[in-house]
Amino acid sequence: MSPRARPSRSPRPEEPVRQEDLRPLNLELVFRHILAAGQPISRTELAAATGLTRPTITRITEELLAGRLITETGLARNGRAGRPRVGLTLSASGPAGLGLDIRADGLAACVVDLGGTVRHLAFTPFRYAGRAAADVLAQLAGMTRAAVRAGAAQDLDVVTVTLAAPGPVRDGVVRSAPALGWRHVEAGALLHEALRPLDLPVMVDNEATLAALGELYAGDDSLGDFVYVSGGLGIGAGIVLDGRLMRGARGWSGELGHTVIEHDGLPCPCGARGCLQSYASLPAILGGEPAPAGLTPDVAVTSRAEAGDPATLAALDRAGTALGIGLANALNILDLDIVLLGGSFSLLASWLTGNVEAEIGRRVLTAAWAPVTVRPALLGPDAAVIGAALTSVDQVRRQPSAWLTGGPRARLPSVS
Amino acid sequence: MSPRARPSRSPRPEEPVRQEDLRPLNLELVFRHILAAGQPISRTELAAATGLTRPTITRITEELLAGRLITETGLARNGRAGRPRVGLTLSASGPAGLGLDIRADGLAACVVDLGGTVRHLAFTPFRYAGRAAADVLAQLAGMTRAAVRAGAAQDLDVVTVTLAAPGPVRDGVVRSAPALGWRHVEAGALLHEALRPLDLPVMVDNEATLAALGELYAGDDSLGDFVYVSGGLGIGAGIVLDGRLMRGARGWSGELGHTVIEHDGLPCPCGARGCLQSYASLPAILGGEPAPAGLTPDVAVTSRAEAGDPATLAALDRAGTALGIGLANALNILDLDIVLLGGSFSLLASWLTGNVEAEIGRRVLTAAWAPVTVRPALLGPDAAVIGAALTSVDQVRRQPSAWLTGGPRARLPSVS
Repeated sequence: MSPRARPSRSPRPEEPVRQEDLRPLNLELVFRHILAAGQPISRTELAAATGLTRPTITRITEELLAGRLITETGLARNGRAGRPRVGLTLSASGPAGLGLDIRADGLAACVVDLGGTVRHLAFTPFRYAGRAAADVLAQLAGMTRAAVRAGAAQDLDVVTVTLAAPGPVRDGVVRSAPALGWRHVEAGALLHEALRPLDLPVMVDNEATLAALGELYAGDDSLGDFVYVSGGLGIGAGIVLDGRLMRGARGWSGELGHTVIEHDGLPCPCGARGCLQSYASLPAILGGEPAPAGLTPDVAVTSRAEAGDPATLAALDRAGTALGIGLANALNILDLDIVLLGGSFSLLASWLTGNVEAEIGRRVLTAAWAPVTVRPALLGPDAAVIGAALTSVDQVRRQPSAWLTGGPRARLPSVS
Repeated sequence: MSPRARPSRSPRPEEPVRQEDLRPLNLELVFRHILAAGQPISRTELAAATGLTRPTITRITEELLAGRLITETGLARNGRAGRPRVGLTLSASGPAGLGLDIRADGLAACVVDLGGTVRHLAFTPFRYAGRAAADVLAQLAGMTRAAVRAGAAQDLDVVTVTLAAPGPVRDGVVRSAPALGWRHVEAGALLHEALRPLDLPVMVDNEATLAALGELYAGDDSLGDFVYVSGGLGIGAGIVLDGRLMRGARGWSGELGHTVIEHDGLPCPCGARGCLQSYASLPAILGGEPAPAGLTPDVAVTSRAEAGDPATLAALDRAGTALGIGLANALNILDLDIVLLGGSFSLLASWLTGNVEAEIGRRVLTAAWAPVTVRPALLGPDAAVIGAALTSVDQVRRQPSAWLTGGPRARLPSVS
């Protein structure tokens, strides 16, 4: 045998670096330093940090100021005599991102500014039983209009809407969301249509994926590798490796709810048997019965658990063990050392964590010498909607030069 | 709630691009084009492909020729009159990589040249029962010496040795290999010591990871996202996403053999219960009995299966179902559409594939509209040792300028 190996696939051959390519690169370099600073930074400090000349820094910061990406602010005097220095920081007005989330207990909308600060957060209880996808999207369109208006009142221009959906998504289409009874719902196109005459770009992405991004943004630097597991009507996971989402080949990674707990176990709406979702989702914990009138499923579960209801406590015990087995499988496959319990699981963490930790400790091969941390998500049930809003504005953060040269701005909404 | 999101973690702030940085970048650009060409390429074609000037191409190709990374060869005349053009291609002598593998049926060694062609492949049957790690490594050291000599006889200089080990590895230490009874074996240091007076750098990596790399090199361009599952004394997986290894947070990804098939199932040497390894490894298929004297475990299984032995066929049926469940879990989590059956599974594929496909079709949520391909690994049981050898030489392929300026060369072995 004499296989002829192909050359390394990455890095691929590319164009040589030319001097004229440096201009947008240097603008993005300066912008990244302002982003990374986390506090006002002076032009002098930017020149020192980037190695660029002072005239280049001046030109670039003028561009960024004119585009409302940054703003000038006073800097604390550093103890020496002289005039106070002028600091540069991210603009609190200008481009903003809008997020939407379809969660177990209702619908949520959120607006964040360029710095990632939440400027608007709204929630509407919603019961999905017997409601068509179009009803859900019409309700979301109304919440979007309200959020755009709330942003405009704060001098924020929403550039994009991102919808978090509980299932695999591609090109704006929710391929399957068994927990909602959705199959091939063109959510992006339907929402865009429902928003007319607003002409906002609409993106759709997986809920757990967006929630993981929200946690990544909100967490500290130690949070670089983790799995975020979202509990609700179904169960999904968002996987982050080395600070980046691990989306899989088609963007459909993280279907933890359909991993097997018992190979001949309970039937699942997906058509298979023994899926984790059938043991640890809110409907499973409620024993298949609908939540009492006026109560959302997670409120129904937490109130019964707090009251010490034996059936609910037993169901949470089973759910924690099943979730621990599913997570142990994921950790053996992925090699991660942090688990964030998100969505409704963030509210149920005190009843779930013990069993989850026990199964992981017993079953993850590397846990013997490298223990795994299990904790509730930092943003609680809001992780997905905040992650969706951050994703909406992230394009501007990553490619400020494209924004400044009119790329995304050409599609800016004409708020009606 | 008003979380202040941190800036995007990637790309991070970095230094501006300066003109003097372009020299090694352009050398690597030219080398990558020669690698990617797959056939001899002329200096004129290189200039056109890279956008670099002809004098720059001439200077760079002189450097690459002097370092024995490329060689000159005749190019076919393209039908027009004139002197035949001179082509440049990867050198068939010069730097080479050496791989070693600890597999179910014995020990393997391999040498590949810079172009990825296998130039030496050796195999020694070995039975692990009752043998200490030091015995295994002493045997491997002998095979390494023979492989270095075989390379030298073909004008190849082995630059690095990479050992494939069946378990999680870090910094040359095999943390745990339950199938071999190894725990915290300092395989890299022990092998380096056993090789004296040769002073070859020794790397140790996971067997399934290296095998996945071997398949990636040997496969065609369509093979960019897949899971390679290696069967043998244990079971491991190598995961490739977008043409890159998905190694996990600490490099310990792919422990598929220790994912759960039955939560209260058969005991596993790892200490847990119901691990896939206890249902689908070669020892499990053999029913826990040792292979008959003189037969390696995979030969014992295949010969019994070919003879129609009912117990063996039933064990293969169970193994295929268990493997399908474990893989379905992995695919739901990772989102991949190709499964390569590797190691001993490549020899048993005709008995396993049907059940594996059935479980995946039934259990992977996205398989309903995006079918998964299951097939034997291209390199069969040699994938890991070839992948290890390719990994050994890959540093030179990726960073030819570091090699030319004396980086790895300073550690070249003085073959005794």
